[in-house]
Amino acid sequence: MFKKVLIANRGEIALRVIRACKELGIKTVAIHSEADAASLHVRAADEKVCVGPAEAALSYRNIPNVLSAAEISGADAIHPGYGFLSENAHFAEVCESIGIKFIGPSSENIAMLGDKAKAREIVMKRGLPVTPGSPGELRSEEEALQAAQKIGFPVIIKATAGGGGRGMRVVNKAEDLARAFQAAQAEAKSTFGNESVYLERYFLEPRHIEVQVMADNRGHVIHLGERDCSIQRRHQKLLEETPSPAIDDKLRKEIGRVAVEAVKAAHYRNVGTVEFLLDKDRNFFFMEVNTRIQVEHPITEMVTGVDLIKEQIRLAAGLPLPLRQQDVVMNGHSMECRINAEDPEKFTPSPGLITKYNPPGGFGVRVDSVMQTGAIVSPHYDSMIAKLITHGRDRQECMARMRRALDEFVIEGIKTTIPLHRRILDDPDFQKGHVSTTFLERFLAS
Amino acid sequence: MFKKVLIANRGEIALRVIRACKELGIKTVAIHSEADAASLHVRAADEKVCVGPAEAALSYRNIPNVLSAAEISGADAIHPGYGFLSENAHFAEVCESIGIKFIGPSSENIAMLGDKAKAREIVMKRGLPVTPGSPGELRSEEEALQAAQKIGFPVIIKATAGGGGRGMRVVNKAEDLARAFQAAQAEAKSTFGNESVYLERYFLEPRHIEVQVMADNRGHVIHLGERDCSIQRRHQKLLEETPSPAIDDKLRKEIGRVAVEAVKAAHYRNVGTVEFLLDKDRNFFFMEVNTRIQVEHPITEMVTGVDLIKEQIRLAAGLPLPLRQQDVVMNGHSMECRINAEDPEKFTPSPGLITKYNPPGGFGVRVDSVMQTGAIVSPHYDSMIAKLITHGRDRQECMARMRRALDEFVIEGIKTTIPLHRRILDDPDFQKGHVSTTFLERFLAS
Repeated sequence: MFKKVLIANRGEIALRVIRACKELGIKTVAIHSEADAASLHVRAADEKVCVGPAEAALSYRNIPNVLSAAEISGADAIHPGYGFLSENAHFAEVCESIGIKFIGPSSENIAMLGDKAKAREIVMKRGLPVTPGSPGELRSEEEALQAAQKIGFPVIIKATAGGGGRGMRVVNKAEDLARAFQAAQAEAKSTFGNESVYLERYFLEPRHIEVQVMADNRGHVIHLGERDCSIQRRHQKLLEETPSPAIDDKLRKEIGRVAVEAVKAAHYRNVGTVEFLLDKDRNFFFMEVNTRIQVEHPITEMVTGVDLIKEQIRLAAGLPLPLRQQDVVMNGHSMECRINAEDPEKFTPSPGLITKYNPPGGFGVRVDSVMQTGAIVSPHYDSMIAKLITHGRDRQECMARMRRALDEFVIEGIKTTIPLHRRILDDPDFQKGHVSTTFLERFLAS
Repeated sequence: MFKKVLIANRGEIALRVIRACKELGIKTVAIHSEADAASLHVRAADEKVCVGPAEAALSYRNIPNVLSAAEISGADAIHPGYGFLSENAHFAEVCESIGIKFIGPSSENIAMLGDKAKAREIVMKRGLPVTPGSPGELRSEEEALQAAQKIGFPVIIKATAGGGGRGMRVVNKAEDLARAFQAAQAEAKSTFGNESVYLERYFLEPRHIEVQVMADNRGHVIHLGERDCSIQRRHQKLLEETPSPAIDDKLRKEIGRVAVEAVKAAHYRNVGTVEFLLDKDRNFFFMEVNTRIQVEHPITEMVTGVDLIKEQIRLAAGLPLPLRQQDVVMNGHSMECRINAEDPEKFTPSPGLITKYNPPGGFGVRVDSVMQTGAIVSPHYDSMIAKLITHGRDRQECMARMRRALDEFVIEGIKTTIPLHRRILDDPDFQKGHVSTTFLERFLAS
């Protein structure tokens, strides 16, 4: 097992990893920007290294600085969290080359699955259901038009290096295609440094369903059920739950089997997530594999009891899977509300000093956050400041508990999305589980 | 279902009940003494009524004041929590007589099982194993001596109205019996207003094992497994866990069956706890039934997923049991550390202002407390200020998580038992689960 892990991240996920390391008896090194020197994630670690100024490009994404922090602290492994360098194949490769274990899949895995068009090809070749779309990367507007006409409008153009809703354009008719193609390419290039795009059918009211998978070095792969992440705003997830109200045991088994097959086809190792679209007729289509831990991983932990961060670490250290597929049991229901430092109506950032912070507690309530009274929400980073997760024996109890916990949560000094979550939980369609990825847009417009 | 519940208690258990009511959609009324006006349990409720000055006898134990609070607020039920009026048969009877539901068993149940000698008789008559002892109440020193000589020394003299370690005396030899008998009678009289005592064999290194039971109005009874509460100081529990490291599936089934039988013999209703001693040869003996919710109930909730406070309320409202015995599954392992405002070495109270309070969080960590930065720990009440509960897939993970959570817990301004819990968790015998009710005494002496 590793002796010392450097956490190449900040905020709640850095603290999450530090907690897992402590429970495993592993020493921790926090890195931080100048803006984060007082953060709880830094105080919670055994050691700390400042890696640069506030801007993430100069600190958390600064590969030479992060690697020298690992070398001077003597860390034998690096956990990348999510975002920042977590899906950077080059970073993983450099870690490998200097003998520091990257806690995640191999750099080849990251590179291969990071190319979304390539990932589709691999999965398609295995005979698994993929969203209808272009066979691979689109080299010209003409190719794009041919592909779109073959599968029918509307379509969505996506960056092959994409993620997080960037470099995407929905196209409803042929005459809009050229402009959208160019805009997507330009955004892909500016965001990911890679202008390559591909195209898929655009489903009208799909659910976003993702399956948590774990694979060890011996080629054993299991899945830990699905997460329903349909409550999104501009492709940003806001509230997730498991099990999905739209998935029964039979469909879970089938989608789980496809996720495991996709992972096997890619010779994937470690913890990962396979994303699917589920249409209204309960057909599901592979979209992509996320090669890192997801923000929403806690809800899977709550129903399965499996600590996914510990498993990432154990699997990276070469240990076998901790359980077999038949030992995976989903107990009850779990939801996560992402609490963002934002105006809950205009969605504008609301950084600043937290003058009072009292998290909710009690049975079935979990809070993952580095916030405390007196903490400062920096304008330099993602606006998510806390994840509020509840668990209940069934969806009804889980929702009632979330509603209660949202009411209890005291955050003063800044604006947060707590009032928005309360309104979502009061919505009759949401309560019935009748949602799709367009739910929030309509909800906000009404 | 009830429309409005008055919580006749304070602190963490009052907040616990308020949370359950909120999740059930029931309005809540908090009562409070003058000392508790600013407590979180008061702010969390929909309504509040001051019932008297700081001294509990004049406020929380003041039956006329509590009942008028219920009447003026229009509450249709009262939850008594633990301590205070929770085992007061007279209070339950008055509630019944004025049409306010007492959330707990009937006043007859409370009266019958509150007489510990009587409870032993009932259980013995059913042919269940009871600690060897006097057949009932002891009327004289001569009767006590006869009984002690029959079962053999050492023996323990206990108040029939007892609880919480008061009115007890251990006697090692015949010549000490008379004095101990008188002392126990005197303490029983001063503490409980009833000098009646009985006598049991005193086991040398037993475990304290208790079984959680639930019974509905239809006579259905189930158990939710055991709790091992062997870590005690002067009969006060300090750390509890479930499952017990000393109990395997076979013994669990047997002790659970006896607990259910005992409850049936007493025609008991609602949630309750059957306490046993387990000796070194794995023989177990009935001690008593607790007719209220226990402080340590959360660890059972963590492994079974059943919300015991909600079930108390539902059962009191006449609803049937929510699950059958065969549906009860114990998932993983749970522990509770009672965090007391005490000097962790001298065990003297440490009331005062909490200048900083940051509870631990993350996966598998639950905190039940009304404390916050700026709260004041009153010298008038029990010193317990927080319950820290962890859950893990197995005992090892549960302990590692507790150790991590104790390290994270920040409480400044007063002294607490957190350092003592850290030391217990570091003890090799505790880690192996080799403990008995004498563990802590020896541990503290070493």
